[in-house]
Amino acid sequence: MFRATCIAKRATHAPPLYRLAPTSYARLTSPALLARTYATTFESPSSKLIRRARTAAKYTFFVFGSTVVGCVVLTGAIFLHDAFTYHNRNIEGVPVAPRALQPERGGPKNLPILSTLLSDWEDDENRGLAEKPHLVIVGGGWGAVGVLDKINPGDYHVTIVSPETYTTFTPLLPFRMTAAAVGTVSVRSLVEPLRKIAARLRGHLINARAVDLVMSERLLEVETISPNGLKDQHMYIPYDKLIIAVGSTSSTHGVPGLEHCFQLKTVSDAQAIRKRIIDNFEAASLPTTTPEERKRLLSFVVCGGGPTGVETAAEIYDLCQEDLMNYFPKICRKEVSIHVIQSREHILNTYSEAISRYAEDKFNRDHIDLITMARVSSIDHDKVTYTRRKPDGKVETFEIPTNFILWSTGIAMNPFTKRVSELLPNQVHKKAIEVDAHLRVKGAPLGTVYAIGDASTIETSIVSYLLELVDEADKNKDGKIDYDEWKIMVSRIKKRIPMAEEQLMKVRELFDLYDSDADNSLNLNELAVLLQEIGNKITALPATAQVASQQGKYLGKKLSKLAERRSVLEANGLTMDEGDEALAPPFRYRHLGSLAYIGNAAVFDLGRFSFMGGLAAMYAWRSVYWSEQVSMRTRALLMIDWVVRGIWGRDLSRL
Amino acid sequence: MFRATCIAKRATHAPPLYRLAPTSYARLTSPALLARTYATTFESPSSKLIRRARTAAKYTFFVFGSTVVGCVVLTGAIFLHDAFTYHNRNIEGVPVAPRALQPERGGPKNLPILSTLLSDWEDDENRGLAEKPHLVIVGGGWGAVGVLDKINPGDYHVTIVSPETYTTFTPLLPFRMTAAAVGTVSVRSLVEPLRKIAARLRGHLINARAVDLVMSERLLEVETISPNGLKDQHMYIPYDKLIIAVGSTSSTHGVPGLEHCFQLKTVSDAQAIRKRIIDNFEAASLPTTTPEERKRLLSFVVCGGGPTGVETAAEIYDLCQEDLMNYFPKICRKEVSIHVIQSREHILNTYSEAISRYAEDKFNRDHIDLITMARVSSIDHDKVTYTRRKPDGKVETFEIPTNFILWSTGIAMNPFTKRVSELLPNQVHKKAIEVDAHLRVKGAPLGTVYAIGDASTIETSIVSYLLELVDEADKNKDGKIDYDEWKIMVSRIKKRIPMAEEQLMKVRELFDLYDSDADNSLNLNELAVLLQEIGNKITALPATAQVASQQGKYLGKKLSKLAERRSVLEANGLTMDEGDEALAPPFRYRHLGSLAYIGNAAVFDLGRFSFMGGLAAMYAWRSVYWSEQVSMRTRALLMIDWVVRGIWGRDLSRL
Repeated sequence: MFRATCIAKRATHAPPLYRLAPTSYARLTSPALLARTYATTFESPSSKLIRRARTAAKYTFFVFGSTVVGCVVLTGAIFLHDAFTYHNRNIEGVPVAPRALQPERGGPKNLPILSTLLSDWEDDENRGLAEKPHLVIVGGGWGAVGVLDKINPGDYHVTIVSPETYTTFTPLLPFRMTAAAVGTVSVRSLVEPLRKIAARLRGHLINARAVDLVMSERLLEVETISPNGLKDQHMYIPYDKLIIAVGSTSSTHGVPGLEHCFQLKTVSDAQAIRKRIIDNFEAASLPTTTPEERKRLLSFVVCGGGPTGVETAAEIYDLCQEDLMNYFPKICRKEVSIHVIQSREHILNTYSEAISRYAEDKFNRDHIDLITMARVSSIDHDKVTYTRRKPDGKVETFEIPTNFILWSTGIAMNPFTKRVSELLPNQVHKKAIEVDAHLRVKGAPLGTVYAIGDASTIETSIVSYLLELVDEADKNKDGKIDYDEWKIMVSRIKKRIPMAEEQLMKVRELFDLYDSDADNSLNLNELAVLLQEIGNKITALPATAQVASQQGKYLGKKLSKLAERRSVLEANGLTMDEGDEALAPPFRYRHLGSLAYIGNAAVFDLGRFSFMGGLAAMYAWRSVYWSEQVSMRTRALLMIDWVVRGIWGRDLSRL
Repeated sequence: MFRATCIAKRATHAPPLYRLAPTSYARLTSPALLARTYATTFESPSSKLIRRARTAAKYTFFVFGSTVVGCVVLTGAIFLHDAFTYHNRNIEGVPVAPRALQPERGGPKNLPILSTLLSDWEDDENRGLAEKPHLVIVGGGWGAVGVLDKINPGDYHVTIVSPETYTTFTPLLPFRMTAAAVGTVSVRSLVEPLRKIAARLRGHLINARAVDLVMSERLLEVETISPNGLKDQHMYIPYDKLIIAVGSTSSTHGVPGLEHCFQLKTVSDAQAIRKRIIDNFEAASLPTTTPEERKRLLSFVVCGGGPTGVETAAEIYDLCQEDLMNYFPKICRKEVSIHVIQSREHILNTYSEAISRYAEDKFNRDHIDLITMARVSSIDHDKVTYTRRKPDGKVETFEIPTNFILWSTGIAMNPFTKRVSELLPNQVHKKAIEVDAHLRVKGAPLGTVYAIGDASTIETSIVSYLLELVDEADKNKDGKIDYDEWKIMVSRIKKRIPMAEEQLMKVRELFDLYDSDADNSLNLNELAVLLQEIGNKITALPATAQVASQQGKYLGKKLSKLAERRSVLEANGLTMDEGDEALAPPFRYRHLGSLAYIGNAAVFDLGRFSFMGGLAAMYAWRSVYWSEQVSMRTRALLMIDWVVRGIWGRDLSRL
């Protein structure tokens, strides 16, 4: 505008350009008109600039205009589509198998056996599926969704057994729903109904809890989760292939008083946490609350310095800084204290050192109280007690008065996993079901029972395969392994237990190191020691969503391959149950990096290199989080959540 | 493309247009080039058409392109804005009044008195507000939000007392959250934190339940809602003006077994209803469920044919028709039955007859079971029992086995309203606190206690003002009212009780009708009969969000006017408490129409004319619903919800 006026002024001093009658000229003396005339006639550099600016403005306006038009058209289209989603459908007489309405009883406990489900006779496609091998997936988390994602439709009759009717997306990191806990992300964008996910495979959902397993008869015993006014029932679900993907529970470490703690495993947990935080603030804002009580109400303690703990602490900090501060008395903000109790020397200790230092620095800047090398000894409803060893070896005891304690310190077996482990004498692992590299449960009938995710751990003991390995590698049958034979053996081990790969990098060095008698060959004793020690060095896979998801996808692909190649297998004298090794390589984990969100900053650990920082990293974190969502619906909702958060702040209501 | 090729073919047969060297010509024989040359040279009608089509295509493409660009820019801008919302703020030493940290005790029960709140000394603005009259609003619903909406900032020290920290938007219709119950609308778009709403006025929230009132000392007794690990406390909140806007509870009608019923008053209710519906479907889809049990699980009973009941029934029907059908065995859909039990002859009986007939026809087409003229006699956990009088006068008893019962049959007083009513001897109304036309609680000290919304009812008894009215109107003081005096009286009555207006339309007729002795004047006896009968004919305002919201806004405006004109009032020898009549007309309700959503159709009752129909009416209903939202945030979320519903269907998870 300012520029236009300048030009206009200059223009009035310019000589008349056309022979104009005085009246016409008077008509043209309007500065804006003159400017236009001047601009179109003389092509001076500045007027060129103006012309371009004007064109640019015109185009900007046009782009803006068409954006509005486009958005209106799009909205219209969506509502038009919406209008067509309202219609009535009629249900004709749908055939139901008599066996589905009145299931036979059987098995050791003489319970109903659900060999046919209600919708199995609904149409030809379902009838066909009912004849296929029955695949039963226990659990509805990352592992289960991974399997469902990769199985080809039509290969299996799929049944999901889950006490929840939805799956919760806790992407990449274990229990990643801190954000929901404090209102950044609304609950609906974190869940997806299992029935919708299973619809692609025409799968079924049994809303029940798995309680027992009869491996000899291939029956899974479940207990239904019934609505009020209905008794819980027990029944058997027959399977050809069973996948255990039930996750884990929190490890108690024998600490008394855990009933006063929150956990962060389900969406309900997240909602309860949020409610408590807001409730504490509300109580703290009353004048009748004493200053000590106010301090206690606004003291938030997180036990465990892993990703869940660190992210919760960071989110609570953000909530206080950004949103609550505007609406609660400022004295409340002043009294807030956040404490993270960690047993190791550093938080995020499974990440690279640089990352854990970055996170610690950030927390120190934010005055989040980091208490490392400490053990929680007991928990009361109003305080946490922990101990720390002083440099002189003496143990000191501390107390933090608080009204909010989050417990997130490692995993333990849930009742069903424990039961399965008890049924198999060779299962000795304390925290999960041991599986072989093909994810088959060790000790269960071959190729019928698999376990994935937090519920499982892949065996790392190579020494138990000693004789087999020697038999394969000892080409000259002298009972000893020379260097050439050792090379063969190494490749066999790598194939059998891919996780040992890293330990077997230095083939020559290993050979020389363990050849105690220096006879240029390894005898059985030397080999036993070698394999034992290598086995000990392998670190188990972490209990993360990333591992569960990869295992689920691996298993889904393999099962579809098994179904496809069934005839090939049978031609080779193998049953489907024996096909795992013949058709697919063992499971191999590809670490895609760990990441954590620590209060308007994020850290990435991609193995080789780390990446950390403020907003840029946070947006990178968001984009990974976002791309890991399973459905477009949750993806859209999540994006909307972030936009809503950006515009209107976090939701302070405590629903 | 096809068209372009045709043109190109024609073009090759066209005579050479320019004198071209053979090579140049050859260069031009590329069909596309030729077509272009042809098109720009010959302006045949068809080529004009093509040119226009091409221009149109170009523009469409451009509009589309710029929409995309615009959207990207917009998203970028939102994220840029978002980036600036992450920042740290430091809390300096914030002054807090010593009295706020250690409240004095007093009042009849010697409880702490919150005369100063924690943030009252935070800054100069808050200090100034602390000196203003203290306005205390009890409740956080439509009425309270209406008041908050209209008060000018700086006029009052505002405190909201509410057991919930958020307000729930139940627009226009009582308890309008059926949609949330079945997943069409997510919970977050229905709520808005009260602290955010109060922020404009720098208002305070006390998260507590009002329990008692000491009118002589202007103290409100409240009981805090404490988080786990904290005792509930009682305290007094002093007020200069108190507004009771606590709503109502459901009327029990003395029916036993109501603990087995759902209600639809809060968001938690809506969530519980949704969970039960999905749970029932899950249990019904198990083969072990007997056919009778399945029928019972899928039978949904709604007691009450008012808007809430009708809309819930319609939403359950929609849910079954549209979403559950795709994911549950079809036999479940077949067994669904929905029952509406209504005591009157028609559902939606407060609406026009045409509407109630339309709704009934729609329900009949949808096979929703309408049971009219029936009374629920008892409720068990697994069935509803109701009675109906047969034409011969005999009472028949029926039972519906069910696992879902919604109770929505009228309102009753909640404990606080009951207590207030007990404190005032002239309060005799059974369902609410009686207020005068200025919304002042009858019997309470003038101008200090108001009641609005469901908690209140406006007095309709004119006869109690008889002597006052005669005194004002009887100009010649003959103890009788002649026609001219009657006209004066009518205008006085209209001013005092605007709700009587409709009954007083026919001034002459009334005069003649009640002038029993035909002496052309009304004596006191005749007047008493007249006023009594007119009072009886006035219908009380319905217990709707619309009434509550209008009353709240009326009161907010009036209170601000009182504060503004304080000096004028005092100059006239009036206190602020006496200013109601001097400064503002009595409350006058403007009926904006009733509407109800009945399963992909909606009905509107706008007094003079009704409007009902399918999708068009539904969208109209949505737009009213939408415009009635209080914040842009909930408005945006609601729009998003509808779009999400349109694209991905209802959310089947039961959170």
